[in-house]
Amino acid sequence: MLVIEEEIKMSNVWLLIIIGICLIALLFVVYNYIKIYHMQEGTDRMIKMSGIIREGANVFIKKEFTTIAIVIAILAVLFTLFIEKYSGITYILGATMSSVVCIVGMKSATYANVRTANKAKDSLSIGETVKVALKGGSISGLSVQALGLLGIVLIVLISGIGPQTVETLTGAGLQNLKAYEGNGLINIARLLTNTSVMRITTYSLGCSTVAMFNRVAGGNYTKAADISADILGKIRNDLPEDDSRVPNVIADFIGDNVNDIAGNCSDLLESFVATIAASIVIAIGLLSSYSNIITAELFKATYIFPLVMAGGGLFGCVLGLFIVSIRKMGNNPSKELNLATYISAGLTLIICGVLCYVAFGNSGVDLKELGWKIGWASPWICAILGIASGVAIGLITEYYTSADYKPTQTIAEYATEGEAFVVTKGDAVGSRSCLFPVLIIGASLVISGLLCGTYGIAIASLGMLSFVGTTVSIDAFGPIADNAGGLAESCHLDPEVREITDKLDSVGNTTAAIGKGFAIGSAAFATVSLICAFVGNFNVSGLPIPKIDDFILIAGAIIGGALIEFFCAILTDNTIKSAKELADVGDKQLSNPDVLAGVVDPDYNELVRLATKSALRRMLVPSIIALAVPFVTGVFLGPEFVVGLLLGSTICAIPRAIFMGNSGGAFDNAKKYIESGQLEGHGKGSAAHKAAVAGDTIGDTRKDVVGVALDIFIKMMSTVATTLFVVITALYAFFSSLF
Amino acid sequence: MLVIEEEIKMSNVWLLIIIGICLIALLFVVYNYIKIYHMQEGTDRMIKMSGIIREGANVFIKKEFTTIAIVIAILAVLFTLFIEKYSGITYILGATMSSVVCIVGMKSATYANVRTANKAKDSLSIGETVKVALKGGSISGLSVQALGLLGIVLIVLISGIGPQTVETLTGAGLQNLKAYEGNGLINIARLLTNTSVMRITTYSLGCSTVAMFNRVAGGNYTKAADISADILGKIRNDLPEDDSRVPNVIADFIGDNVNDIAGNCSDLLESFVATIAASIVIAIGLLSSYSNIITAELFKATYIFPLVMAGGGLFGCVLGLFIVSIRKMGNNPSKELNLATYISAGLTLIICGVLCYVAFGNSGVDLKELGWKIGWASPWICAILGIASGVAIGLITEYYTSADYKPTQTIAEYATEGEAFVVTKGDAVGSRSCLFPVLIIGASLVISGLLCGTYGIAIASLGMLSFVGTTVSIDAFGPIADNAGGLAESCHLDPEVREITDKLDSVGNTTAAIGKGFAIGSAAFATVSLICAFVGNFNVSGLPIPKIDDFILIAGAIIGGALIEFFCAILTDNTIKSAKELADVGDKQLSNPDVLAGVVDPDYNELVRLATKSALRRMLVPSIIALAVPFVTGVFLGPEFVVGLLLGSTICAIPRAIFMGNSGGAFDNAKKYIESGQLEGHGKGSAAHKAAVAGDTIGDTRKDVVGVALDIFIKMMSTVATTLFVVITALYAFFSSLF
Repeated sequence: MLVIEEEIKMSNVWLLIIIGICLIALLFVVYNYIKIYHMQEGTDRMIKMSGIIREGANVFIKKEFTTIAIVIAILAVLFTLFIEKYSGITYILGATMSSVVCIVGMKSATYANVRTANKAKDSLSIGETVKVALKGGSISGLSVQALGLLGIVLIVLISGIGPQTVETLTGAGLQNLKAYEGNGLINIARLLTNTSVMRITTYSLGCSTVAMFNRVAGGNYTKAADISADILGKIRNDLPEDDSRVPNVIADFIGDNVNDIAGNCSDLLESFVATIAASIVIAIGLLSSYSNIITAELFKATYIFPLVMAGGGLFGCVLGLFIVSIRKMGNNPSKELNLATYISAGLTLIICGVLCYVAFGNSGVDLKELGWKIGWASPWICAILGIASGVAIGLITEYYTSADYKPTQTIAEYATEGEAFVVTKGDAVGSRSCLFPVLIIGASLVISGLLCGTYGIAIASLGMLSFVGTTVSIDAFGPIADNAGGLAESCHLDPEVREITDKLDSVGNTTAAIGKGFAIGSAAFATVSLICAFVGNFNVSGLPIPKIDDFILIAGAIIGGALIEFFCAILTDNTIKSAKELADVGDKQLSNPDVLAGVVDPDYNELVRLATKSALRRMLVPSIIALAVPFVTGVFLGPEFVVGLLLGSTICAIPRAIFMGNSGGAFDNAKKYIESGQLEGHGKGSAAHKAAVAGDTIGDTRKDVVGVALDIFIKMMSTVATTLFVVITALYAFFSSLF
Repeated sequence: MLVIEEEIKMSNVWLLIIIGICLIALLFVVYNYIKIYHMQEGTDRMIKMSGIIREGANVFIKKEFTTIAIVIAILAVLFTLFIEKYSGITYILGATMSSVVCIVGMKSATYANVRTANKAKDSLSIGETVKVALKGGSISGLSVQALGLLGIVLIVLISGIGPQTVETLTGAGLQNLKAYEGNGLINIARLLTNTSVMRITTYSLGCSTVAMFNRVAGGNYTKAADISADILGKIRNDLPEDDSRVPNVIADFIGDNVNDIAGNCSDLLESFVATIAASIVIAIGLLSSYSNIITAELFKATYIFPLVMAGGGLFGCVLGLFIVSIRKMGNNPSKELNLATYISAGLTLIICGVLCYVAFGNSGVDLKELGWKIGWASPWICAILGIASGVAIGLITEYYTSADYKPTQTIAEYATEGEAFVVTKGDAVGSRSCLFPVLIIGASLVISGLLCGTYGIAIASLGMLSFVGTTVSIDAFGPIADNAGGLAESCHLDPEVREITDKLDSVGNTTAAIGKGFAIGSAAFATVSLICAFVGNFNVSGLPIPKIDDFILIAGAIIGGALIEFFCAILTDNTIKSAKELADVGDKQLSNPDVLAGVVDPDYNELVRLATKSALRRMLVPSIIALAVPFVTGVFLGPEFVVGLLLGSTICAIPRAIFMGNSGGAFDNAKKYIESGQLEGHGKGSAAHKAAVAGDTIGDTRKDVVGVALDIFIKMMSTVATTLFVVITALYAFFSSLF
């Protein structure tokens, strides 16, 4: 017992170090926040317009989180009453962390946008302007990683990995792993849950729930506003982009923050947390499979390592972003942003290697017996694979969506043949772009699986996400720059200013596309890790692992695939319904000749209120599908069906999400390619441009609503299933016994 | 030994009866062919135009089959040399049967189209006209079922199910099931194959190969011609549909025959044959799993029953089509066509029940020990489930694609908001339409699996296909009616005639949509049966059945999903490339003012030659992917990877194929809805109509190229894998041993 207690103390030291890193990161966040806050906002009109944006964003957030809070509260009570006493609290903790990140991100972005525009106006320097936008973005990015990690570390520190695992190690026998001591307050179902696993997974589920609602509502808000503004501005009236006479334009600006900041932050926070949770659950599964080899020390290493690795990555991100923030910046924004990524990723890689050696180098166990092909370095190689895959997928995404390469240029060329050709070609580009990312994911899966089993897959996934702080910072740079450009236009700043913000915006578009590639890649990895964790539960519970010829499983898989299409359909329908509503209301305002002449400001608030209402009304159904389907089908059709469901939906969702993101991105940039006059003989206003605009509008829903929501949909379903495995099997056994 | 020899004789009697039914069906085909041939063709212009169509179709067929023959010959030689002596011959037999069906179908359709137009002209009666078109269609339909079945029955009759299975039954032991005696002429790889299984599956593979090439080339041909004709007629010049001044119009007519007749016939022939083959392979697998229970008599029943069932269905189809052909027909073509389906399906159901009782009713074995929940009736219930699922999927397809229901009407309404809204709404309708068909497939899978194991799944699949003769007849009705309408237009017949053919055409559109639903449903079932057969091979070969947490399998599944998207991309790109080529050449001809004025006929043949060339040039790559991927990946990554690949591609392809078919069908009918003036205030020529035309053009590629090719793609991959299982495992073992 002495050795084990010492081990726990040792690992507690590790946990305290991670908490320290989180606090450093949060201090940096606060510092940046204050810095941004105290910058100048610019002209009166800029102050007024940005005030409306901030106000609108606050109203949306307040209303949205009120609804979310109700759902969270109900589920938290259910968890505490029926499943495990403290899991309601950890569930709320997860939801709170995610919500705080969203609120901080949105607040800082709505401060940073106008200050970015103002910096461009005052300095006329690209480098200075980039710094402001990136500082704003880093507030979101570092909050995501620091708060997400802080929550899970606190849970592990306070509740430990549970006495039953320690018992196992001290000889009370593996069978006790099944007899968990955790229960809800009301013990109707006589569930025996592993307290630590329940607390960790419910924390992750809290993050998922907020992310799901955020993505669905945010996507609807932003694209309904964007599409309706485009219809009014570009199709029904001939106005420039972001013209302040279009009443929907402010809702569009708010939408950028709602979806690209809050939605993206909560999405990646979720991936990050879910991956750590899956790693820990898999580490526990490893213990149950190799109880004869795994020592106390090694077990602690397997479950602490993911946390330490995430902490090391966070440290790398803080350093990377700090270095970039103090360097003198040149006029090439892409280079500066890439530098931040490379420093963060590089540092993470090195730190990770050292940590891996410390954790596994002297375990006293021949790790090859665990199937770790190259000993202590196996997890490290897996992490490297994850990082490399993320970068590679990002580059492929850039190839398929940037106007610098052939796919997008061909879409623009086909635009001369009309809308049908644009869309058909765009569909082909989107479909074609799936193969290589998926081959990379598949190869990484196989290699990390061969090197290090399911644990390796989870670590590869975590590798991709271990510098999520920087990834999100750069992602958040995009909407801030976009908003700054919008403000420059609608506040009638000099064309020179708009030129600078346009340059930032176009870089932002590419980083957004790459970020989406990263989000999809990490979602695919995270989901596969979660499925592995879910299947591992069969082992832990003493059930046979389902075979591939189980027709309940096959039926589940086929239905999972169709569920993805159904989910896409709901989101798409909701978006165009909302867009039509918003366009019609905006049209009514624009029919006032004073508004069209620019003499009177339109009533922006009417549109903002309507966009909020539409988005929130349409948020519940898709989110509840993700929560309910794995649970309900599991209870009635059994865990084999759920395995199939998760696998089928993941297999379909990965290429669908890539398709949606890349076809949308390519449409967007094909339109911009024509607008920039690069397609000879077909400039802005030509028939080809009109066709490209139609493509762009179609792509809007695909890339910013459907594609991004698919990621979180599959992660959420897998998290629900993994969290509720014990409940599902118990209730299924109960219902089966009735027949 | 005596009992077994008697059993074989008994089953030979069954086989001879089936051959008899096939011959009756073929006699009926010949009778109809002669009847059609001797009908009047009509005016000189009709004779001329239909002659050009027939000529063009013949040229295409000749060139296409020359290419196909080379591929078939190479593979046949490889099979005979390296795998099993006679399998090259059976492979050629399968390819020949499929080719003959295509040629007969195309020839009869190109005779029937002009005679249908002429009958409309002479009789001005819908009922009479329907009869001619349906007679033409029944030639294709009955050929499919009769020839497909004849080939496989001959193989079973001549080669038997192989001495090794008989040995098993006489006590030489199950282990001999592994030691098959079949080998190629050159025994390098030392493969031990089951001769009968190899001959049956290579027969099926022959059918697949032809179908694959046909679908890919046919789809490209027809849609390139159609889209280019639409661009020239509707967008660049304002001409009515099917106007004979558009040079591409004849290629379009030929295309209808090439894809909707030849493509469809070979596709459904393939499903039908593959399903029978899978049933027999599964029956052999059953024997190896239950050797302690299964008697000689029962074994024969399990492998003969699928054949007998198919024969019974064929008999039902002959009767159904005969009854409809001698009835006096009313003015409601849908009713008449539905009647044919109901009679055929009803008769099939009854015959099937009787046969099931005869085969399994007195087996002397308690069938519940095999897991057949309700004894002899289990397979019958599975067959009923298959038939019911097929009909239900057809009805759902009709709901989502017919202008009589809300989904299509809403697309038309959104057309008033422009192209982007049409496409987005159409995408949503397509995605939404996947859920219910897949739920039906899933439920049928589970129920038939529970009732009767994997054998039940194969029988359910066969149930859906057991009256394929009638299904294809009605499918083939569509393009004949479509061509008749086109001839009425381009030969300047009275508007009254065009009204009749339009009515037939619109019925044909609905039957085509339903037929596509059926094709997809049956493809899904057939593929799942084939996957079951493939997995069953693990058992027979003594390999462990892969578990769901095998990450090689998971990687295969994810890659399989992306492969589907990649395949869609290639086909889509090829189609628009060809369409653009054809449009440009057609445009050049139309720039001659005499052609546009209608004084001089355009050079139809230039377009026909170009369409043929483009289609054939772009046929090879996609088809070879389907042939090569499962084999190559299997050899290097192992059979577990292939299981994943098949499963992943099937899971993705089913909803994708439904999406493609239904969004395409809905776009088409939304356009027609507006053209018919049912959308108030937005008739033909309005902006809404223009937007709907763009939707229709996008849908053309989806429904007639991509959607239908996906069916055959997954069936083909599964057939390749099942056929080559032994080869794949042997070569994989060899390559693995090198490392």
